[in-house]
Amino acid sequence: MTTDLPFPINRLSPVSDPTKSSPIRKVMKMIEQSNDLISLAAGEAKFSPPPELIEAACTAMKTGKNVYTSTAGIPSIRAALSQFVESQFGARINPETNILLTVGGMEAIYLAARVLLKTGDKVLLPDPGWGVMIPVIEKCGARAEFYPQVETQTWTIDHSKILERMDAQTKLIVINLPSNPTGAMLSQDGFAKVVEKAREMGIFVMSDEVYHNFVFDGCHVSALQFDTLDNLIVINSFSKTYAVTGWRIGYVIAHEWIIQQMVMYKESTSLCSFSIGQWALADYINSSQNYLDEVADLCRRNMEMIVQRLSAIPGVHCSPAQGGFYLFPDFSKIEPSSEKIFARLLEHGVAVIPGKFFGSQGEGRVRIMFAADTEYIDKAVGRIEAAFM
Amino acid sequence: MTTDLPFPINRLSPVSDPTKSSPIRKVMKMIEQSNDLISLAAGEAKFSPPPELIEAACTAMKTGKNVYTSTAGIPSIRAALSQFVESQFGARINPETNILLTVGGMEAIYLAARVLLKTGDKVLLPDPGWGVMIPVIEKCGARAEFYPQVETQTWTIDHSKILERMDAQTKLIVINLPSNPTGAMLSQDGFAKVVEKAREMGIFVMSDEVYHNFVFDGCHVSALQFDTLDNLIVINSFSKTYAVTGWRIGYVIAHEWIIQQMVMYKESTSLCSFSIGQWALADYINSSQNYLDEVADLCRRNMEMIVQRLSAIPGVHCSPAQGGFYLFPDFSKIEPSSEKIFARLLEHGVAVIPGKFFGSQGEGRVRIMFAADTEYIDKAVGRIEAAFM
Repeated sequence: MTTDLPFPINRLSPVSDPTKSSPIRKVMKMIEQSNDLISLAAGEAKFSPPPELIEAACTAMKTGKNVYTSTAGIPSIRAALSQFVESQFGARINPETNILLTVGGMEAIYLAARVLLKTGDKVLLPDPGWGVMIPVIEKCGARAEFYPQVETQTWTIDHSKILERMDAQTKLIVINLPSNPTGAMLSQDGFAKVVEKAREMGIFVMSDEVYHNFVFDGCHVSALQFDTLDNLIVINSFSKTYAVTGWRIGYVIAHEWIIQQMVMYKESTSLCSFSIGQWALADYINSSQNYLDEVADLCRRNMEMIVQRLSAIPGVHCSPAQGGFYLFPDFSKIEPSSEKIFARLLEHGVAVIPGKFFGSQGEGRVRIMFAADTEYIDKAVGRIEAAFM
Repeated sequence: MTTDLPFPINRLSPVSDPTKSSPIRKVMKMIEQSNDLISLAAGEAKFSPPPELIEAACTAMKTGKNVYTSTAGIPSIRAALSQFVESQFGARINPETNILLTVGGMEAIYLAARVLLKTGDKVLLPDPGWGVMIPVIEKCGARAEFYPQVETQTWTIDHSKILERMDAQTKLIVINLPSNPTGAMLSQDGFAKVVEKAREMGIFVMSDEVYHNFVFDGCHVSALQFDTLDNLIVINSFSKTYAVTGWRIGYVIAHEWIIQQMVMYKESTSLCSFSIGQWALADYINSSQNYLDEVADLCRRNMEMIVQRLSAIPGVHCSPAQGGFYLFPDFSKIEPSSEKIFARLLEHGVAVIPGKFFGSQGEGRVRIMFAADTEYIDKAVGRIEAAFM
């Protein structure tokens, strides 16, 4: 492309490679231009946000809250969050110093990477995992290495696979429970061993817990259950929990020095997070348990239905998810290319994400999002069956 | 602080210097904790957003728009914006390729800096000017140099002061019309000469036009009036125009290659901008002229009232602003330290911003924001008079 560019643009080096643009974002563009697609592609729920939350947001809009907040977030949302994480995870944090409100989980990850990573640092990521982390790491001059998730009865993470990859160059380990795209969990004991060993070696652990409400087998294992924040960065979001991905509000919990550094960095990226969402969520989150239980139950039922019906298609293998929003079924006996599976499903009116985007174990697979009303999922599965039966 | 930090945090180097944290952000924190202050500190209007816009946002929230958008922004807001810039500035742009919706003007500036700047590059900034640009430039390894604004009858920008500072190391020139904090403008002819000479020398021009609606003397001079985007990055925002700074929606107009690079970078920082605001603004902006005229008139009246009353205080000099939200009066005959003027005004219940934050000409001055209802401004000026008469 560079040869066609006018001066002085032709003197710039690209900072990003357009061929590495997230396929999720590409599919999002196609969906915006289509009316006939059932989309289980984007990482967001299809069901409605809590009506009380929407009402609170409209009230905030009509009562003068459309203005800047402090960069870290309004005091009331930070107070509400410290109460929320205590009731959900038994964690005690200081709302004044340990929390930063961000532009979705994405900005939380970006800012943490900027504060933690330097040229030459190594970051351990799960494989399969959410590919969007890799360009963030590369922007900081660091490099990604991977620890495998393993598929047995379900997908799981074996802590020993992480421990054996930690070395003197490792600066950060990313743990994502429940996993995107496999729904894998790590045992509390295994997680504790990783955090402990990492602390001894001077390694930070970033725990991405944005799917924490969607756990179908036991309880969510939060990094906040451990008794220190010294080497922990806990990423979370309201996006998945309350079906408001478009509001762009997430948060990070960490040691006050890390938070202070992230706040200062945020003064250069976004100044503050969406004000209305902060006011509405501050009012709402600690009375949201019924909604949280309902949507988690809905997701569990959807997941079980999809597993049952896909497993009935000859040549398809679909392990259940222990948590999260996604299944990562294996179509490789029918078609080894994840892009071709994706294309065949798109022809049949269902958008998913090709498995190859999620790492070295993704060929022959696609990621299917199941956080939607059951009729929507039922219709989608019907189209998948039509494509492969 | 480093000595008190636990391992492994004590192994990190700070990426930001806390003493350089924006005083605007510090004042914002104080305001959040105070009920009795009249604040003319933050860079945001105190009057209400357009009721039609708020209604449109509530409707969008209640009709399923709380989800991700494509990274560049929904097609309808980009189409509406191309119509808006044509009617406001006579500019013809391609809504598909030349526009990116951002998290306020701030993210637009950050992403543009990341795409344009490399280690060693020089960036020319106005002095006085908005200090928040400097840490962005430093994060990219570039360095800021300054061209002066000059106070005569009003503050003005002399294009020859920019031209004489352009050299082979200069990668980017930042122009901010109307100026924050002085309200200065640059003549259309002078602006054209800067853009032309910059293009010859391979230099980019970033035109920050977020105060474009608030021009009291002639018309706004937009970089979009020139016939090329080859070396232009035009930063704009809905924040100031419609009094919705907390929504965090801005936009950038540039050559498609620059936009494509910024879109890819944004996949690592925020994924997409606030969905509800995009839907509401798409519906509203092209019927907003009455609101725009009303608030611009209100600001002009406020500005004139403040100039008149401050000029009546012995020892105070206050030039009128040609545009924008701010006055930058000179109290140096009474008190040479801008921090002490700030402190004295705070004691009297008015928050402003110390002038020193805006560059080398800021001592003895403070920045006073005047986009508010006239009674609010009247009360604030009464307190300023009480502090200095």
